[in-house]
Amino acid sequence: MLKVGIVGYGNLGKGVLKAVSLCKDVKCVGVFTRRDPKSLVLDGGVKSLSVNDLSKYKGKIDVLINCGGSATDLPITSPEFLKDFNVVDSFDTHAKIPEHYKKLNSIGNKHNTLALLSGGWDPGLFSMARLLFSSVLPNGKDYTFWGKGVSQGHSDAIRRIKGVKNAIQYTVPIKKALDSVRNFENPTLSAGEKHNRECYVSLEENADKNLIEQEIKNMPNYFKDYNTIVHFVSNEKVIELQKKLNHGGLVIRTGKTTEENNHILEFSLKLDSNPEFTGSVILALARAVFRLNKEGKKGAVTVFDIPLSYMSDLSDEYLREHLL
Amino acid sequence: MLKVGIVGYGNLGKGVLKAVSLCKDVKCVGVFTRRDPKSLVLDGGVKSLSVNDLSKYKGKIDVLINCGGSATDLPITSPEFLKDFNVVDSFDTHAKIPEHYKKLNSIGNKHNTLALLSGGWDPGLFSMARLLFSSVLPNGKDYTFWGKGVSQGHSDAIRRIKGVKNAIQYTVPIKKALDSVRNFENPTLSAGEKHNRECYVSLEENADKNLIEQEIKNMPNYFKDYNTIVHFVSNEKVIELQKKLNHGGLVIRTGKTTEENNHILEFSLKLDSNPEFTGSVILALARAVFRLNKEGKKGAVTVFDIPLSYMSDLSDEYLREHLL
Repeated sequence: MLKVGIVGYGNLGKGVLKAVSLCKDVKCVGVFTRRDPKSLVLDGGVKSLSVNDLSKYKGKIDVLINCGGSATDLPITSPEFLKDFNVVDSFDTHAKIPEHYKKLNSIGNKHNTLALLSGGWDPGLFSMARLLFSSVLPNGKDYTFWGKGVSQGHSDAIRRIKGVKNAIQYTVPIKKALDSVRNFENPTLSAGEKHNRECYVSLEENADKNLIEQEIKNMPNYFKDYNTIVHFVSNEKVIELQKKLNHGGLVIRTGKTTEENNHILEFSLKLDSNPEFTGSVILALARAVFRLNKEGKKGAVTVFDIPLSYMSDLSDEYLREHLL
Repeated sequence: MLKVGIVGYGNLGKGVLKAVSLCKDVKCVGVFTRRDPKSLVLDGGVKSLSVNDLSKYKGKIDVLINCGGSATDLPITSPEFLKDFNVVDSFDTHAKIPEHYKKLNSIGNKHNTLALLSGGWDPGLFSMARLLFSSVLPNGKDYTFWGKGVSQGHSDAIRRIKGVKNAIQYTVPIKKALDSVRNFENPTLSAGEKHNRECYVSLEENADKNLIEQEIKNMPNYFKDYNTIVHFVSNEKVIELQKKLNHGGLVIRTGKTTEENNHILEFSLKLDSNPEFTGSVILALARAVFRLNKEGKKGAVTVFDIPLSYMSDLSDEYLREHLL
């Protein structure tokens, strides 16, 4: 049995716990929270524990799954936890990955523990697709499209606007851009040329629709460089939409082996629940981290460093016979 | 530089050599053939050599790429070559993979060499997709569809019929079956319920069309359990079609993380040239074999045992910074 601990019980932590319930080879030792542990009642007799008691569990947890946020949480807590535990996190601040890796690698090497950073589906499975595709089709170009799906960051950004009551934002791939890639046109596409941004917004009373629409559409980084569509809807409608945290996307690579022969590789996801699926991916990665660390691997790794069989609970013999 | 040798110069051997020309980090020491080496004139100053001289190249080749056939060739030659060289092959006789693995693993362990068996796209990339998908979405079901593409085995089978001059057979996925999978209907599908078989056949003079059509359609294993469509065409048409060895297919997995949340993962390929792309995949795998063997790995491995970064010529730092 793989004994995992989960730190944090937001959307992702809940997703990981659900994933544990589907895996016969994994046991959750406990969910560690900053809140009052008594305030968390968990299914299946899983213990709710205080994050302050974490160090008491040293030696009792094979892999700690850190479900904190990338902005301020993971850069601090993953290195800290790694002193006592193997750690998996879903760090996704792209520009800071090398820095996060370096820190974790140094601490893991010192403490004989192993961290896997940036697990999930992007970074994660999509990164694996980009690497695999570029390796097997070197003379080519790849494209990542996201959506249709909910962007929490963009939804948050709209909600911060004065007069907005609630909002949800969908990132939607532009079919024309996708078709151009699939037609081997090798287009050069900015993020805004690949995606539309569709917003469902409910307003406070007496808020100015036109002003708010302009404010959304002109928000730098988030919306300015995109075709942004704003729908003003009832608050009930937004709440209804927020119940489904669906997402998805695809990685496409087109390329040639000779002048006349084109090839196209695609990896796509359609997810009803982004956090549940991400949790499931991260749990499979925890399996790999445990096995690698048992073999003596320490420091930090990413999805690029893991033999795929290490993510499975099936034996190598079974895999060769049935999945190869 | 990775120094590879290529054994066999059929479609696959040619594909590997073309792939070498696209990789700056790989050099082809020579193509080894059973034919008179003088009969092979190769581009780019690559040497054409006799397979009988192979042992003279021990120590001068990092990985030998064995491009023989699975039926009678690879089971004999891969173990033989492995005594002196690291080897990659594309062994695809599914039922005999465990036996082939065992033999190679034993010889590699004895001679400190490493073999990767069953490289390519199926087995190969599709196997990786099946393993990855089942690991991250354990409560689900996967489906592999092949085509639209040329099946050499089925084309050969038609050509053996008396009265047939020439033939090419396409395996074509059935859209209705694919749609059912994508609609989360979890259908149980036989190979014949997933694929049609479309045949283009030219006849000898005075051959009996109706008889031949019945003979094709009733051929056990190959056609009997499929919806088979036979087009009688001119010999020129068949020759024209044979110029393009296109293929493709997809691996789909549907599954749930909770009762209400469905997910779908897809990996698909569309290839203008099956042998050129397969050659390109195998070359990337040779890179991994070389690196693993340098690290002390010996025996036999499959695509399941390889960290993806080992297939790339890019540094780990670069990959983390740009592809993660």
